[in-house]
Amino acid sequence: MKPSADTKNSSNRIILDAMGGDYAPKNEIAGAILAAREGYEVILTGKDNFIYPHIKDLPKRIKERLSIVSAEDFIRMDDNPSESLRKKRNSSLGIGMQLLKEGKASAFVSAGNTGAVMAFAIFILGRIEGITRPAIAGFIPTKNGKGIMLDMGANVDMKPENLVQFATMGVNLSKVVFRINSPVVGLLSIGSERGKGNSVVKIANEMLEKTDINYYGLVEGRDIFKGIVDVVVCDGFVGNTVLKASEGLAEFITSSLKKEIKTHPVSLFGSIFMRRVFKKLKEKFDYSEYGGAPLLGVNGNVIICHGSSPPLAIKNAIKLSALFSEKKLNEQIAIAIREAKK
Amino acid sequence: MKPSADTKNSSNRIILDAMGGDYAPKNEIAGAILAAREGYEVILTGKDNFIYPHIKDLPKRIKERLSIVSAEDFIRMDDNPSESLRKKRNSSLGIGMQLLKEGKASAFVSAGNTGAVMAFAIFILGRIEGITRPAIAGFIPTKNGKGIMLDMGANVDMKPENLVQFATMGVNLSKVVFRINSPVVGLLSIGSERGKGNSVVKIANEMLEKTDINYYGLVEGRDIFKGIVDVVVCDGFVGNTVLKASEGLAEFITSSLKKEIKTHPVSLFGSIFMRRVFKKLKEKFDYSEYGGAPLLGVNGNVIICHGSSPPLAIKNAIKLSALFSEKKLNEQIAIAIREAKK
Repeated sequence: MKPSADTKNSSNRIILDAMGGDYAPKNEIAGAILAAREGYEVILTGKDNFIYPHIKDLPKRIKERLSIVSAEDFIRMDDNPSESLRKKRNSSLGIGMQLLKEGKASAFVSAGNTGAVMAFAIFILGRIEGITRPAIAGFIPTKNGKGIMLDMGANVDMKPENLVQFATMGVNLSKVVFRINSPVVGLLSIGSERGKGNSVVKIANEMLEKTDINYYGLVEGRDIFKGIVDVVVCDGFVGNTVLKASEGLAEFITSSLKKEIKTHPVSLFGSIFMRRVFKKLKEKFDYSEYGGAPLLGVNGNVIICHGSSPPLAIKNAIKLSALFSEKKLNEQIAIAIREAKK
Repeated sequence: MKPSADTKNSSNRIILDAMGGDYAPKNEIAGAILAAREGYEVILTGKDNFIYPHIKDLPKRIKERLSIVSAEDFIRMDDNPSESLRKKRNSSLGIGMQLLKEGKASAFVSAGNTGAVMAFAIFILGRIEGITRPAIAGFIPTKNGKGIMLDMGANVDMKPENLVQFATMGVNLSKVVFRINSPVVGLLSIGSERGKGNSVVKIANEMLEKTDINYYGLVEGRDIFKGIVDVVVCDGFVGNTVLKASEGLAEFITSSLKKEIKTHPVSLFGSIFMRRVFKKLKEKFDYSEYGGAPLLGVNGNVIICHGSSPPLAIKNAIKLSALFSEKKLNEQIAIAIREAKK
């Protein structure tokens, strides 16, 4: 995660949807400024008069790395994706994606409506040749550090061959982000013995055994956070549900602990000393570190951030997307998919 | 959860698979003894010479509540369920299930091989009329206390009508265990807006809207632990994965906290004060409270315990099964399924 931001190259020019996100454009602009301070060029799409006041007084060397491409419309978090695609092509999202398509920058980052980002990406950029379904890849905390899980919700009702392609995309992502030479892939199922799973998983398992992928086999839900594999592959329905259930559970455990602490004066005293421990835990589960989830399988470098992303997450997503560009992640995926077809 | 164990009635006679479980027969026998002390009669199935030494020296009033039905064979945790069904009918599981079928007791409890328990239950007891697929119901911790989630892994590749039946079974379970008059049901999906989900969930959602069930609508993974619904309905693949991922995550969070505490002397001091807080948290997530997960939809009262169940969990599963019998849970489910068909 450290592209050489200071050496000027096109990898470091990123488009940011300034109007997408729960706290847009505030957090988005703040994130862009953080990135600019580290040498990245950011093209902000959105309403001029919303954005310009935030950047006009910046020092010249920062300000010259930020540019605005005006977009009159924007897509709300609860707008219908396909309707947005029909009616809001001149939104900050639509214009940003179009700029990426035209090669005006190396990547596009948005903390906006996930469904809409996917719809625009597929429609405007198209899919990488050979890929039938894109996938959203998530970075998950594990006992060894971080792992990758996909699909996190781009698609449901998968065919076995989609899951095999997710494995290929996950492997290439793992190589780029974690510099693992031969990432180990597991297929999520309800048991680790061969033959466990639903009809799609069973066939995908047999298909994966025949690939060149460093395939571990089936893994269970409880293995996800153990880090026994580098890449966990699953259907978007399962991935999304597990992701959200995990977020809910982590939040529940934390709030339960805090509640208990409040009710016991003795524990409150203890909690003062526990503060550092909680902080460390929070860092481990903090998604801001990587900033966002890459949308893999489309013909362009797209990162989707959490709607409530703080500026730090936006900045890190920009950095991550620059890394993908520098390491030619999509080209690697395209080659791997072609090779797999042979 | 307090059937009147002292008033002698047939609800209080339970069959326990003494040889099923990671620590069988030790924990199973110890659990049976705890139950006998509370007035329950337990029929233990398994090897005489394994079981008898553990109970022969008990006080007469406890001992007379425990009986052994000899079973020469037993099913291992990793045995193939369908093969076991063919070859191990004289196992502690097979004989126990047969005793239930013959009405020798009101329920059957096992901490053994889940797949085998299901296979024997379906084959020997059959399904409740109108039910096409049984489901395993789990008790989950929520902000309001406990909730129900099903299916936890009895079946995969569901049809929409199966999910609707799960809702009916879950409602009746919730009424009996939590005494809720009109339990609220949610259908697990990847978003809470109508139209979100995979093809099966979308149809099930429309079907559920037309039932008499107190139906909330779609819920997301993050809602599971919030307790906004009393019953969460899902496919067994999703339920099992979420359950195991949650167990894995809770274990990961706890071990991360403990690891952090160890590395910081100041935190170690703090942790002494935090002990009570951790204990409370552990209780909240402890599955022993209800002992096991009911297998719903079969013609008999069957509870499946965690393989590593401590004696307390075994005892509580026995108590729970007696409650089901007393409240005629299966009869209630059968009536509700018949009513729904009208």
